[in-house]
Amino acid sequence: MNSSLFKIQHKDTRTRARAGVLRTSRGEIHTPVFMPVGTQASVKTIANQELFEAGAQIVLANTYHLYLRPGEEVIKEAGGLHSFMNWNKPILTDSGGFQIFSLAKLNKVRPEGVEFQSHIDGSRHFLTPEDVVRIQCSLGSDILMPLDECVKYPVEYAEAQKSLELTAQWAMRSKKAWLDGGEKTPERVSGILFGIVQGATFAELRKQAARELVDMDFPGYAIGGLSVGEPNELMVETLRQTLPLLPEDKPRYLMGVGMPLDLLEAVSQGVDMFDCVVPTRNGRNATVFTPDGTLLLRGASYIRDFTPIDEKCPCYTCRTHTRSYLRHLFNAGEHLAGRLASLHNLTFFIQLLGSMRRSIEEDRFIEFRRDFERRFTQVSTGDKE
Amino acid sequence: MNSSLFKIQHKDTRTRARAGVLRTSRGEIHTPVFMPVGTQASVKTIANQELFEAGAQIVLANTYHLYLRPGEEVIKEAGGLHSFMNWNKPILTDSGGFQIFSLAKLNKVRPEGVEFQSHIDGSRHFLTPEDVVRIQCSLGSDILMPLDECVKYPVEYAEAQKSLELTAQWAMRSKKAWLDGGEKTPERVSGILFGIVQGATFAELRKQAARELVDMDFPGYAIGGLSVGEPNELMVETLRQTLPLLPEDKPRYLMGVGMPLDLLEAVSQGVDMFDCVVPTRNGRNATVFTPDGTLLLRGASYIRDFTPIDEKCPCYTCRTHTRSYLRHLFNAGEHLAGRLASLHNLTFFIQLLGSMRRSIEEDRFIEFRRDFERRFTQVSTGDKE
Repeated sequence: MNSSLFKIQHKDTRTRARAGVLRTSRGEIHTPVFMPVGTQASVKTIANQELFEAGAQIVLANTYHLYLRPGEEVIKEAGGLHSFMNWNKPILTDSGGFQIFSLAKLNKVRPEGVEFQSHIDGSRHFLTPEDVVRIQCSLGSDILMPLDECVKYPVEYAEAQKSLELTAQWAMRSKKAWLDGGEKTPERVSGILFGIVQGATFAELRKQAARELVDMDFPGYAIGGLSVGEPNELMVETLRQTLPLLPEDKPRYLMGVGMPLDLLEAVSQGVDMFDCVVPTRNGRNATVFTPDGTLLLRGASYIRDFTPIDEKCPCYTCRTHTRSYLRHLFNAGEHLAGRLASLHNLTFFIQLLGSMRRSIEEDRFIEFRRDFERRFTQVSTGDKE
Repeated sequence: MNSSLFKIQHKDTRTRARAGVLRTSRGEIHTPVFMPVGTQASVKTIANQELFEAGAQIVLANTYHLYLRPGEEVIKEAGGLHSFMNWNKPILTDSGGFQIFSLAKLNKVRPEGVEFQSHIDGSRHFLTPEDVVRIQCSLGSDILMPLDECVKYPVEYAEAQKSLELTAQWAMRSKKAWLDGGEKTPERVSGILFGIVQGATFAELRKQAARELVDMDFPGYAIGGLSVGEPNELMVETLRQTLPLLPEDKPRYLMGVGMPLDLLEAVSQGVDMFDCVVPTRNGRNATVFTPDGTLLLRGASYIRDFTPIDEKCPCYTCRTHTRSYLRHLFNAGEHLAGRLASLHNLTFFIQLLGSMRRSIEEDRFIEFRRDFERRFTQVSTGDKE
């Protein structure tokens, strides 16, 4: 593992926020970064060309979903996932652990791996941590995630502890499979494997998980098992306890988070990478983000609102259409509505992380955060959610 | 009515096909032309930018739908339909007659107009032919259609005859309203009103309708009431009987038609304008058009087909993605699938009409048609529909 894969370019002087760059064989990723989620090899409703224009540096895809459909072999024959979806920037693949434990039916965990039934057709599958690494190598992923057991919230300490032991063993086996895989599949060498810190909301378990994973020396660390239903303060608290345990010089990825204020908090604590379905999911449900908070575009107050979602937003939606038109599209059930709103939201999140990065470089992250929060959360007379 | 609004640039020497240009205040339309359907002020799933790139010269919108939602006043306040949807090329608005008789509940026809219940919320409405012209003037339509009564197929002669008499009276009143409207609504002057020839599949009634409408001297003529369930041969036959009755020097618009072979037949008989939901509706259902026929992209034969839908197609979809990827998107239920397929199909239809036009200009329409038909209908071993 070459730790120079990740370089911190500037540390904020008053918080733990940092601006960095993560090198991959498919280009550099400037952090902090927001990664759009393309679960099934498609960021929902959005074309690649639009992702480029929105400034996306990397997208996510999901190993569980792609393993089931279209299958490892099809993507391998296509020349890997980048070629299959014609996306030539980096791709991070989630292991699918979360999906196996939330989406698949009848999952059964054994020390060797996990047995589950496909949520699509009920077919039975058994995947080991080694399989999951191998599949991600086949996909040609740039950043791989190991299979882990995801516990629900709330969970008893004993159960979380037991789960963590398994996850630690699996992490070890994943790393070995990843290192070994290099000889067998040449494309593997381009991807790096992150360790995932679990431990629910128990400080002691998070500490233990972090220690074990750091001992294994991964090129990067993810924090999993947050934003799964726990109160926001508990997430923030867990983050505060966990992050200082991770090495400064490795990238840190907070999985599945989150809303703008969560992103600001996490960046202030030193998180570098984020993914979340909020921009696209909320977009399809008519909720759009602006510096002045969110708007629910179905609201009656937009019937005659002939201004864009955000006058200063550079996205196609804001350059082209009014809130009135977008409201009409949502009300009329037009598919274009969700697409245009998703594109705007993705642009908003990508730009937000870009702005955070610049503010870190210029040692004004605290001011940026304060101003953003003040404006974003102010109560207006509009149709705020 | 200035008949120089439409100019025939070239007549095919061996068929009745013609290449022309229709001038509107928002630009010229080169005919024969395919007009994408944007019923609710949106061509389903497609952004304006993509319509431009696909070569769309004009789009359709529907008066019935827009009258109900978002309503005449909202669009008027937006500065008209072009401004509302930010489309600065011509727009043709259908009167909504067809929708009132097919979509609305409990419609009741009276000599003055038609009473109906909204299909959206059940609210009661009464619209006269004058109202329908006024609404289209408010929208700022470039080509207006008069309210007509649309009979179902099959229909008895006596019923079709009675309906036709009403439609003729409404056409007369529509024309008067359109001429009068010029003084009241300045924007009106830019739009032209077409007459719609009805008469079901009865040659005698079509003849009568054409004669009456030609006497009223409209700037263009539409042929309605076809492609409503009648056998294809009956549509072709009716077209053959009707078209020669219309003045050579006016544009002719065949409403709601159709499939590529129908378009070739109609152009050979002298039709200039077409609209149809086939490219978008079929696209959303995974059916795409190619010079070699249609493909149902869900088919298993595309699982490992890493070629584009059509190698020679200039559309974004064909430049970017493979059949294998598109099949995956359809199978995975990704919204992007229908969008990409719709974009390709629209490009295919627009290009098909453009190719017809060039072949007319070069006196090789018959050869173009023969070659297209031979290739399009040949039986291959693929997953043709």
